[in-house]
Amino acid sequence: MTLMSDARRGAITQDIKTAAKFEGCDPEFIRKGIAEGRIVIPHNPIHKFSKIFAIGEGTSVKINANIGTSKDFVNVDEEIQKAKLAEKYGADAIMDLSTGGNLKEIRRKIMDSVDVMIGTVPIYQAGVEAINKVGSVVEMTEDHLFNAIESHAKDGVDFMTVHCGVNKESVQRLKRQGRITNVVSRGGSFLAAWILHNNKENPLYAQYDYLLEMAKKYDFTLSLGDGMRPGCIADATDRPQVQELIILGELVDRARAKDVQAMVEGPGHVPYNQIAANMQIQKTLCRGAPFYVLGPLVTDIAPGYDHITGAIGGTLAAVSGADFLCYVTPAEHLSLPTIEDVRAGTIASKIAAHAADLAKGNKRAWEMDLKMAEARRKLDWKAQAECALDPEMAKERRKKRMSSDDDVCSMCGPLCAIKLVNEYLKK
Amino acid sequence: MTLMSDARRGAITQDIKTAAKFEGCDPEFIRKGIAEGRIVIPHNPIHKFSKIFAIGEGTSVKINANIGTSKDFVNVDEEIQKAKLAEKYGADAIMDLSTGGNLKEIRRKIMDSVDVMIGTVPIYQAGVEAINKVGSVVEMTEDHLFNAIESHAKDGVDFMTVHCGVNKESVQRLKRQGRITNVVSRGGSFLAAWILHNNKENPLYAQYDYLLEMAKKYDFTLSLGDGMRPGCIADATDRPQVQELIILGELVDRARAKDVQAMVEGPGHVPYNQIAANMQIQKTLCRGAPFYVLGPLVTDIAPGYDHITGAIGGTLAAVSGADFLCYVTPAEHLSLPTIEDVRAGTIASKIAAHAADLAKGNKRAWEMDLKMAEARRKLDWKAQAECALDPEMAKERRKKRMSSDDDVCSMCGPLCAIKLVNEYLKK
Repeated sequence: MTLMSDARRGAITQDIKTAAKFEGCDPEFIRKGIAEGRIVIPHNPIHKFSKIFAIGEGTSVKINANIGTSKDFVNVDEEIQKAKLAEKYGADAIMDLSTGGNLKEIRRKIMDSVDVMIGTVPIYQAGVEAINKVGSVVEMTEDHLFNAIESHAKDGVDFMTVHCGVNKESVQRLKRQGRITNVVSRGGSFLAAWILHNNKENPLYAQYDYLLEMAKKYDFTLSLGDGMRPGCIADATDRPQVQELIILGELVDRARAKDVQAMVEGPGHVPYNQIAANMQIQKTLCRGAPFYVLGPLVTDIAPGYDHITGAIGGTLAAVSGADFLCYVTPAEHLSLPTIEDVRAGTIASKIAAHAADLAKGNKRAWEMDLKMAEARRKLDWKAQAECALDPEMAKERRKKRMSSDDDVCSMCGPLCAIKLVNEYLKK
Repeated sequence: MTLMSDARRGAITQDIKTAAKFEGCDPEFIRKGIAEGRIVIPHNPIHKFSKIFAIGEGTSVKINANIGTSKDFVNVDEEIQKAKLAEKYGADAIMDLSTGGNLKEIRRKIMDSVDVMIGTVPIYQAGVEAINKVGSVVEMTEDHLFNAIESHAKDGVDFMTVHCGVNKESVQRLKRQGRITNVVSRGGSFLAAWILHNNKENPLYAQYDYLLEMAKKYDFTLSLGDGMRPGCIADATDRPQVQELIILGELVDRARAKDVQAMVEGPGHVPYNQIAANMQIQKTLCRGAPFYVLGPLVTDIAPGYDHITGAIGGTLAAVSGADFLCYVTPAEHLSLPTIEDVRAGTIASKIAAHAADLAKGNKRAWEMDLKMAEARRKLDWKAQAECALDPEMAKERRKKRMSSDDDVCSMCGPLCAIKLVNEYLKK
């Protein structure tokens, strides 16, 4: 039995109750959404954690933080610190994308250090093992791939990115398109290269039924990866991207038929005016499956600030239907993120999710802002810090440049507008 | 003669030519826009500078950086460094909002240090002088106010924020509304308190014709301030705000009748779903006058990160009709910004303006992104840094965590998607 089959037979499980309580909604709303595939609760029963969240239509916007080692930087303690920091600042999920060091050990340590759902991209492990054993990612066997997936499932991973839509058809469309940046998804590139080199179909597509059996057995959620996501503004919403989305839509149908929860991943680099359309076609092509977007980044020219380009795109995406935002850090396009980058990325993504929740009239979100506004009216600086998404940052910045009048701030000092008008309105 | 009267008699002045060249448009388009009041080129003839820009309908989105001393931090050299840094990272205008130290001297030094249009808020000087001379901002005389404006005009200030719409009518609406944060505009608060204390009409409203005469004589541009802008999400788009906007719309008509260029300032704290409506009503109520927005900030709860909340709101505002974005720094709501805050604020605002330009199909903007995308495809890291909005940041971050393979970055290292697919697509 999977959570989806439970939901379909009308059961309000504990996970559904927990998720509904957080949303402040009727558990029946969540149950129905799961039964219909418009909501997922990624939770591999092997994995024990308490912050159980629903992702999808009618729920608050969730965010994910990617962490993990690379070949050049293998510092497990640092990655654990990143995971903890991301959780502290509001990440609802952590993806371990490690590609350097002992991947299994790192994954387990990260899972042990946080209390949220965990996602992974098992093809990274398969690819790295193929390189180590047979010299190249294109020599990866089907066994490498499915063994990695099963191993992650056994470790309790709650959701896995699987690039099932990078197949002969979408690769053909990629070749015809003549893109600027071709493929920028790591997993997508492994499979595109594999297909081109071996002239064989992507095992994750050819043997999708086997993948579904495994997902059903372990009850992990499929996150259908967008290997064809645009890597630059000029490639956005092009034929390979939309072709892959059509294929992913069919795969969503097949997952639902097997009681397997599935969400769909989305772009990427997208100009602002194309974001709403991207969200809308995902919802139609994939029959309302939860949409998990990376960014979208609204320009290519801001390396060092892509947490901002991602927050801009993420807000509009979430307002237009995206359910789950993958954070982007200031290190994107440049290097493996530092701990501070993870903090900046998490907060930026949280701002986007929260701004979208406000825009959609989420009551909890409005209460949070109202509390801050009241603290500001009262010039209550302690309360202001407590209401902040990053209390430490708010306190630290204020402290660094204090005013000599301690009820105001050093921007306006005695010319504080709030103070002045409060005084004269009272009279 | 003002630039507007020149434009109305059909003259294509040098400023119009310069601005049109930057936009890549027919100078006649700019001339017509100025004649009709939908475009402004703030340029006080006394002020010599070369970066002449048009602001308004059909032009690229411009950004402004606010700098200036406060009572607590009077460091003129630091403010000059801020102004220069803002210009370097793409600010199209600098506003000197100093309220501490020798205001006239600071203003002149800042104007001498940059090559862009300069804006000010003369009521700050009038208010500070009133406090120094007569003990309170509510004892400010009409002479204080108009003398400050004339003194700024004589110094060559190109545009001035004048809170003419904070009048008895809008203050009455404010009282009836029962707002959470009342007034958060500094200039607006001076005038609201002044009106309440003296039970007299705002001189900038009562003697608006005199203000127009002065603006005509010196040919500076009016920036009609939004003293009633919402200071929190809960106060957004309420009656005092919209009442003031109606009044400002009437004042735009009166400015146009006197050949005086005018733009209108806008919010503020606004939930994402109300931003487009705010831009649309400004354009109707003010007959298409250029709209200059501060943010908008899409949530109250991110002190320390308001450059991000402002960039999110600013992008949507600019896509929906705003022409000119005032930056917000990470110090907003907390303290006077540091030099690094100015850099972060300028880049964030530039990202918003650029993302909106891309969304509106601006050719130059698309060429910038295409150049970056091509540099990425080629893994040309030198070219990538050159294409970046902040080249120093891009270089520094990459350098801090280099990969051992110098053609890739330390995020993916040898697993670089672009490298892999470029290789197999070639075969």
